Amino acid sequence: MHKTISPKYTTDQLNSLLQQVQEFVKTELFPLEKEAFAHDWEKLLPVLDEKRKSVKSNGWWTPQIPEEWGGIGLSVEEHGKLSAVLGQSPYGHYVFNCQAPDAGNMEILIEFGTPEQQEKFLKPLLAGEIRSCFGMTEPEFAGSNPVRMGTLAQLQEEDYVVSGHKWFTSGAHQASFCIVMCLTNPNSENPYGRASQIIIPCDTPGYKHVRRIPVGGDKGYGWASHSEILLENCKVPIGNLLGAEGKGFAIAQTRLGPGRIHHCMRWLGICQRAFDMMVHRAATRKIRENRVLAQQQTIQNWIAECKAEMYAARLMVLDTARKIDQKGAYEAREEISMIKFYCANMLQKVLDFSIQVHGAEGITDDLMLSYWYRHERGARIYDGADEVHKSRVAKLVLKKYGLKI
Amino acid sequence: MHKTISPKYTTDQLNSLLQQVQEFVKTELFPLEKEAFAHDWEKLLPVLDEKRKSVKSNGWWTPQIPEEWGGIGLSVEEHGKLSAVLGQSPYGHYVFNCQAPDAGNMEILIEFGTPEQQEKFLKPLLAGEIRSCFGMTEPEFAGSNPVRMGTLAQLQEEDYVVSGHKWFTSGAHQASFCIVMCLTNPNSENPYGRASQIIIPCDTPGYKHVRRIPVGGDKGYGWASHSEILLENCKVPIGNLLGAEGKGFAIAQTRLGPGRIHHCMRWLGICQRAFDMMVHRAATRKIRENRVLAQQQTIQNWIAECKAEMYAARLMVLDTARKIDQKGAYEAREEISMIKFYCANMLQKVLDFSIQVHGAEGITDDLMLSYWYRHERGARIYDGADEVHKSRVAKLVLKKYGLKI
Amino acid sequence: MHKTISPKYTTDQLNSLLQQVQEFVKTELFPLEKEAFAHDWEKLLPVLDEKRKSVKSNGWWTPQIPEEWGGIGLSVEEHGKLSAVLGQSPYGHYVFNCQAPDAGNMEILIEFGTPEQQEKFLKPLLAGEIRSCFGMTEPEFAGSNPVRMGTLAQLQEEDYVVSGHKWFTSGAHQASFCIVMCLTNPNSENPYGRASQIIIPCDTPGYKHVRRIPVGGDKGYGWASHSEILLENCKVPIGNLLGAEGKGFAIAQTRLGPGRIHHCMRWLGICQRAFDMMVHRAATRKIRENRVLAQQQTIQNWIAECKAEMYAARLMVLDTARKIDQKGAYEAREEISMIKFYCANMLQKVLDFSIQVHGAEGITDDLMLSYWYRHERGARIYDGADEVHKSRVAKLVLKKYGLKI
Amino acid sequence: MHKTISPKYTTDQLNSLLQQVQEFVKTELFPLEKEAFAHDWEKLLPVLDEKRKSVKSNGWWTPQIPEEWGGIGLSVEEHGKLSAVLGQSPYGHYVFNCQAPDAGNMEILIEFGTPEQQEKFLKPLLAGEIRSCFGMTEPEFAGSNPVRMGTLAQLQEEDYVVSGHKWFTSGAHQASFCIVMCLTNPNSENPYGRASQIIIPCDTPGYKHVRRIPVGGDKGYGWASHSEILLENCKVPIGNLLGAEGKGFAIAQTRLGPGRIHHCMRWLGICQRAFDMMVHRAATRKIRENRVLAQQQTIQNWIAECKAEMYAARLMVLDTARKIDQKGAYEAREEISMIKFYCANMLQKVLDFSIQVHGAEGITDDLMLSYWYRHERGARIYDGADEVHKSRVAKLVLKKYGLKI
Repeated sequence: MHKTISPKYTTDQLNSLLQQVQEFVKTELFPLEKEAFAHDWEKLLPVLDEKRKSVKSNGWWTPQIPEEWGGIGLSVEEHGKLSAVLGQSPYGHYVFNCQAPDAGNMEILIEFGTPEQQEKFLKPLLAGEIRSCFGMTEPEFAGSNPVRMGTLAQLQEEDYVVSGHKWFTSGAHQASFCIVMCLTNPNSENPYGRASQIIIPCDTPGYKHVRRIPVGGDKGYGWASHSEILLENCKVPIGNLLGAEGKGFAIAQTRLGPGRIHHCMRWLGICQRAFDMMVHRAATRKIRENRVLAQQQTIQNWIAECKAEMYAARLMVLDTARKIDQKGAYEAREEISMIKFYCANMLQKVLDFSIQVHGAEGITDDLMLSYWYRHERGARIYDGADEVHKSRVAKLVLKKYGLKI
Repeated sequence: MHKTISPKYTTDQLNSLLQQVQEFVKTELFPLEKEAFAHDWEKLLPVLDEKRKSVKSNGWWTPQIPEEWGGIGLSVEEHGKLSAVLGQSPYGHYVFNCQAPDAGNMEILIEFGTPEQQEKFLKPLLAGEIRSCFGMTEPEFAGSNPVRMGTLAQLQEEDYVVSGHKWFTSGAHQASFCIVMCLTNPNSENPYGRASQIIIPCDTPGYKHVRRIPVGGDKGYGWASHSEILLENCKVPIGNLLGAEGKGFAIAQTRLGPGRIHHCMRWLGICQRAFDMMVHRAATRKIRENRVLAQQQTIQNWIAECKAEMYAARLMVLDTARKIDQKGAYEAREEISMIKFYCANMLQKVLDFSIQVHGAEGITDDLMLSYWYRHERGARIYDGADEVHKSRVAKLVLKKYGLKI
Repeated sequence: MHKTISPKYTTDQLNSLLQQVQEFVKTELFPLEKEAFAHDWEKLLPVLDEKRKSVKSNGWWTPQIPEEWGGIGLSVEEHGKLSAVLGQSPYGHYVFNCQAPDAGNMEILIEFGTPEQQEKFLKPLLAGEIRSCFGMTEPEFAGSNPVRMGTLAQLQEEDYVVSGHKWFTSGAHQASFCIVMCLTNPNSENPYGRASQIIIPCDTPGYKHVRRIPVGGDKGYGWASHSEILLENCKVPIGNLLGAEGKGFAIAQTRLGPGRIHHCMRWLGICQRAFDMMVHRAATRKIRENRVLAQQQTIQNWIAECKAEMYAARLMVLDTARKIDQKGAYEAREEISMIKFYCANMLQKVLDFSIQVHGAEGITDDLMLSYWYRHERGARIYDGADEVHKSRVAKLVLKKYGLKI
Repeated sequence: MHKTISPKYTTDQLNSLLQQVQEFVKTELFPLEKEAFAHDWEKLLPVLDEKRKSVKSNGWWTPQIPEEWGGIGLSVEEHGKLSAVLGQSPYGHYVFNCQAPDAGNMEILIEFGTPEQQEKFLKPLLAGEIRSCFGMTEPEFAGSNPVRMGTLAQLQEEDYVVSGHKWFTSGAHQASFCIVMCLTNPNSENPYGRASQIIIPCDTPGYKHVRRIPVGGDKGYGWASHSEILLENCKVPIGNLLGAEGKGFAIAQTRLGPGRIHHCMRWLGICQRAFDMMVHRAATRKIRENRVLAQQQTIQNWIAECKAEMYAARLMVLDTARKIDQKGAYEAREEISMIKFYCANMLQKVLDFSIQVHGAEGITDDLMLSYWYRHERGARIYDGADEVHKSRVAKLVLKKYGLKI
């Protein structure tokens, strides 16, 4: 049963927080993009870890986590507004320790973890001492069908022995543990009851980090990586099972619904930044004496269209967040699917227009636009491709009209 | 200075009203579309006038008008929600006496009319005894530029003598008076200070109703008409001036901002209806044994895309309405322009998809889809073409970034 | 086996013909649109029949028909070019006696008709003395699945007794005969071998012309109508069977392939006209002193986009026509499906832009744009909805990659 | 005056060439993408230079260059067809020595170079011994306005002294010379007569290769690079002037027209490859037992839409090539602008769909799709942004309708 989540702050308090964080993001994070090390994660990470200290000392650490676990305890709607601020920088969420996939792992460990699991895995994660990953996608099976997978866990006395092949395991590089989706009950009649989630420390014998998969021209590093993982008879104690056997799919749902809205919130931030860059560029780039780009009607069309879609997206995301706060993610699943595909497409459109307004500079890695253009092409694919979400919305709608397909 | 408009009802009260009106629209108005006279306004109007009596007796008459003038006094946001219900029927707004252009004329007569003008023109309008029109658009001048017009009013002693040529004067057929935009101060330095609004009774000598302009295959009739009007030395007393000389443009703005959101609200209703028809059709139309249209993924895409855009549009329209209630239409002008073009395009998209799902039947006049498809092509043109609103939004945005163009 | 069709004319001869017909269409047909009777088919038809006499005396009659049957004998490609000229007027094809569905009926009667059928039905059709229709679509069955239908023909001694319900029978009003698709072998194992085509004179007892279906705001009249037809035990002699029993589907294919390209050709003409109107309007409509619409960059974008898509469409249609001439319609079925949906969408886009450039005038029935906008919404539906053609193209493509679905 | 270019080959001969080259590209070049060094230009270039030897020995070297200069002498249309084959591999054009910008430099050196220039610069270029670049774009000036630039060349006795700042100088890394657009006559009344083209060897003192600009996640290398160049008082002899003083813009036009169609041709090849990958993936990727992706209607829509647009694009590009062959690039400038924006947008669409069909794998650098997605975002920007070409087309169209803007 879903617990209603109440807002943490009054409107004024929240606005004050948002304003401070906006200032922090602008003065502390934006300049990092210009630094020589911007594209060199090895040099960048220690700097980001310095910024994390400031965030902690400002009392902003893990804003989405309940106070009893050391966070601020923001509601989904409040966190949405904050996340839209953080998303303006590619480093915002990491610096606040609310980056994917760790944020999702924190959530399920809080909800389903045993005290031992929480002690061993959750606490250092919350503290930002370690990072984690979530092993779900497999190269041999279509991600659109979550009940098909090849990774198997066999119970051998007090241990699970897990073997399988995962990829697009985000953040796996340098992670300390991986929560692995695997079949424990492959012969269960209910296809949604076959999988479980098992926590596998990354130093487990047989756990092989094959490679960071190069994506969009980047090899990736640390939390900003997507890895291929081979599990060869990884033996972990039975106590590493998360929740109960056969509950893997149900727990994944708990995680994925909010996970999707978190992406949408972050995209709002990216769009805001790309839009700011676009308008600024249009307002200042001369195309001839006494005429700037912004005087071209086509550019005006783009500014207006982006503004309108961002207005739409923000209202929808916050409305959906409110519904999650009040009724839970399950009740909001139609809205979540709608914002997932709507926002992903808006994101791509805003980035595309902003690039076009910047001309050749727009595709250089001198600007963050290129980074987002390359990496957020995945937005229409990860956590459910557009087509999957559209079919899902349609089926929920059709049900109300009496057709169950 | 704008007066804040407060909600009239509690949420529960409003929902109860909306539910009752939804029922009324469904049981009393939808069936009229099927009647033999559906496309024959001459036969239809007396039936609609009967329905008006029910509306009055239910206490729903002129819902948007302040109580002191006999209405319900709904806020813009509340009226938005009601209007989205009424818009599901092409007859909804007329039956509630909140149809364009009369609703707009009521508003400006309440705000700017003299007691004499209110007695003579406003009261019978509110009572539904007469209808009116608003003469703005001229064939020789682009509507995108409201300060250019050819209609002139010359003061001759105690009278204005007005001559000019108007068209797309909606509702002019069988109207009792026309509020005419005309130049009284053509040489004023300020281009926005040249025009005035003058009330011209339609039986004034020289007022010539040239024709109902056939639009979208329909000749039009009564309030559902768009006419060409010739004004040849129409003499009216100086007391027919609305507000002050040179205030024509300012008064038009007062009227046009809310006018646009009223269209958006009505379109939400049309979309809801077209969407209901689409989903119902998809859920029931067999394409072969054991397979209905709704099982085709393309149809599912359309359902989901329409649902998402309708969700977006509704949230934006209501948010804008709230802003108008709180800060006035001027402060909400950027939002008004955004929803104007966003909603008009969404409307066209939803109608298009719904037609496509209906196949050949979708383009017949057996269904209302054809009526809306034909008549609401104008939505992207009237009250400011998309392109005009986009430029306007862009200019308002650019101003915040320091560029004034 | 397909016979190669050779061009009739040298390039110069064809260009000379096209130029003359362009002149004729412009001077003889365009002005009819402005006449008071333009929207009154009853008054218009006698005028058009006068124009037919000129066409005959110019030697242009039934240009697509082989010389031995009294036509010019143009190849499909040549007729495509001519058709793109005729399509600029809504009356062009009728005046040249190559309008749908008569042109298609002529074709199948030439190819499959018995001498008796040709004498009785084909000759007066070629002469323009009568008109005909083709009864395929049924209200109860999805047009996307041509093997499902409800009309049945039972052989009773020397007669077929046909019963069924048709609609969207184009040109049925005032037609002399109808070629009816009906099941003669409903139990045949091959679903494509169940139907036959039977010629039913419209004065056959039991043949009931229920109504002209109002479409796009027009009731329709004569060849410009779409009717609902009821067949109640219509008895016709066995000699009215076209081709052999069970060949209805095969003959329909023969007819539909070229029928689709004929639509595309006509649409090229409509687009050319709408484009001409758009550019002319843009070049002359003032938006303020010293500035016309065409100086707005948005309008320039539309002109360029329309021009490019019309360029694409013309090349594709003519390339497909050439392929039909050389290899037959079956070999060109992938191309035919591609141009069907590509051109229908281009048509809608060009009409939409042209309307938008015309502003309010664009939606009035003063211009032909409104007529096409209303009636050619069907282009994406009739003769196979976009979605059907897209699936068909995809399946033909996939077959080449080894997947047969 | 334009010289008509005749085809080199009969249809059969050309088809035979195309088939052989297709085989070569498939067997010799495709496999390179899979090699470990695929993303390491330093290791890749020597391998490509081996492939160049095979091309030479096959007699395919510099196919677009006249025979008297050692090429095959293909017409623009023939080269278009070949180029669409080569474009399927990112290495195709380099291996045939017809890559940009060298191909363009070869053309203008053949047409405008002095015998000395041809000896020194053209011959080693044709032989593939050196590479070159073309310095046009400047960071401080909008590329959409080619007459504005900051690079100045001052005549000092027998030398030009050139200073300026260029970027997006493609292929500048490791190039031997750069043809630089610069102002020699900055005060000329005719803005199109101010610039000249001057050949600057890259070892000229003051010529500073600042950096390879990282684009789309890649630093670039060799011919696959885009550099920033600083020219600080580069002194070159007057004999390095290409053509006459003030002819820089005219020569650039000569180069840019064909340059654009060459891009379009190459894009056809990329699209063909991306399409092949998409269809193959769709036909083989299982989404559940007994169902592959290609059975999803959305995927079928994409296949059909891509196929139709590729069909359109190919016909337009070849038609334009034919027009260039017959009448020269100036006469075909409207068509060139149309194909430039049409093909660039089609390219982006086909790549986008192909990526989406590949799911997560589509955005990895394991496939070439990611490379093209990242690098061909520039297609809508380089050699004239879409918006510039659209305005240009519109202005050419409007001129025919009597409006000169």
